[in-house]
Amino acid sequence: MGTKHKQSCSIAGFLNVFGDAWTLLIVREALFGTTRFSDFQRNTGAAKNLLSDRLSLLVDHGILAKVEIGTMGSRHAYHITERGKSLGSVLSSIILWANEHLYPDGEAPNVLIENKSGKEVRDIEPFLKDGKGVDWSDVSVVAGPGASNAARKRFGLRDEPK
Amino acid sequence: MGTKHKQSCSIAGFLNVFGDAWTLLIVREALFGTTRFSDFQRNTGAAKNLLSDRLSLLVDHGILAKVEIGTMGSRHAYHITERGKSLGSVLSSIILWANEHLYPDGEAPNVLIENKSGKEVRDIEPFLKDGKGVDWSDVSVVAGPGASNAARKRFGLRDEPK
Repeated sequence: MGTKHKQSCSIAGFLNVFGDAWTLLIVREALFGTTRFSDFQRNTGAAKNLLSDRLSLLVDHGILAKVEIGTMGSRHAYHITERGKSLGSVLSSIILWANEHLYPDGEAPNVLIENKSGKEVRDIEPFLKDGKGVDWSDVSVVAGPGASNAARKRFGLRDEPK
Repeated sequence: MGTKHKQSCSIAGFLNVFGDAWTLLIVREALFGTTRFSDFQRNTGAAKNLLSDRLSLLVDHGILAKVEIGTMGSRHAYHITERGKSLGSVLSSIILWANEHLYPDGEAPNVLIENKSGKEVRDIEPFLKDGKGVDWSDVSVVAGPGASNAARKRFGLRDEPK
């Protein structure tokens, strides 16, 4: 998967790494504790060459760490990194949306739970950097400090992002 | 894009619809108010046949509504639906992650802001259905009520999801 998008957009940047049908599934596996090539293959159903390509991509982006195991020097394990674990927020938002919109009531394949209570997580909510909660209806996307001129023109830029 | 994943997993289900480099970019455009084919094309850079295919897919899944405009009956506009708007939570989680991990400090192409204060949204946090906030570190994915037997065996199932 090459860099498809050159435009000044955080979503385009994300899709240049994760924008296919397999990469986030491989991240899911790593988050569930899978570390070996053959286990990734079995649990995702990805073809060998595709899986090999995506694992390398995830190592290149610091989502997985490739670790040599065994004495032959030719066997590896892939461990999720802290950066990889932080993708839990993206995967959680996907699970919540998918459960509400792609499956009939009571047919969600996975749910999110709070471990200590066993209760189901149902929403995610946005927070300002000072910790104050925000209504989704009052959230907008604007050009950021690294936006191209074209993006600034299009989306507007707050003079002084707070 | 056909159905690639048959496994019992909310992420796999999501990737069957949105798992490519373009579909979420087209949703972004629709959320920004783009409605015309030529505008989607210009703003995403997608090839015509690919764009046509993805717009149809998004109409089929109720993310966009196809509306006839003009008297010739051959011109259409694509309007984001309420279901489509709800993808804002997924796109927001992607923007927040991408800005933290794919761009150096101060080079984020887009940021999320609260309209009324102009302040930057920095986090998303999970909530239980009774409205109580949860630590990300205490959130797990388990098999849901619609999980296959294989998925239940693998992920465990709470007897009584609360």
